[in-house]
Amino acid sequence: MKVMMLIAHGSRKQSANDEVRRLAQKVQELGGGDYDAVLPAFLELAEPDIQQGIASCIELGASEIVAVPYFLAAGRHVVQDIPGELACARAGYPGISIEMSQYLGENDAMAGLILQCAQQGGQATR
Amino acid sequence: MKVMMLIAHGSRKQSANDEVRRLAQKVQELGGGDYDAVLPAFLELAEPDIQQGIASCIELGASEIVAVPYFLAAGRHVVQDIPGELACARAGYPGISIEMSQYLGENDAMAGLILQCAQQGGQATR
Repeated sequence: MKVMMLIAHGSRKQSANDEVRRLAQKVQELGGGDYDAVLPAFLELAEPDIQQGIASCIELGASEIVAVPYFLAAGRHVVQDIPGELACARAGYPGISIEMSQYLGENDAMAGLILQCAQQGGQATR
Repeated sequence: MKVMMLIAHGSRKQSANDEVRRLAQKVQELGGGDYDAVLPAFLELAEPDIQQGIASCIELGASEIVAVPYFLAAGRHVVQDIPGELACARAGYPGISIEMSQYLGENDAMAGLILQCAQQGGQATR
């Protein structure tokens, strides 16, 4: 059983964390069975944190966990903090495959997404 | 003349700011003439800041500036800080159209991009 964990930074603003939770749900629907579940997790400031997220994946029956950093740049969080959390999780669950994918900003399709955004008026300030 | 300003948060880590600068260049190339230029700007911690970025757009000859927030969630920066900076810029350049587009995380294509990321191994930690 394959589960994606979408790891966001986490915010003091609950509506921002809820955006991530809704997005994980949308990814699961769009994936159409590629992932048996897509769970959100947060590096800090919100729950579940990464260790709690991993535990939830395993409670669901995951044998393979793909952790996707929902981050734009390869800063300390992407280069050190998330890999460190995942290494810790691997030590606790040696029979489970736990891999980190590309972080969001690394994807080649990002430039195209920015062009799409530019053509659409913003909702955030209305 | 239409110019896009790609507004990132800005980081203490220069390599992260350089990622944004390279991305702006890539967006310009991909846009194929939709925008006469695509300039990066930073809300904080890096330069050019938003006012400097607007001034650069106008020096280039921009009559229309589309500001794209390179942000994942509608937090304070997207809802208050960037609109505030743009309002300030409009007051200084009343003849120029300065509009804010969707922020990145608002785009409907985001879920698909996450699925793409999940299928690709990360480079950041290698």
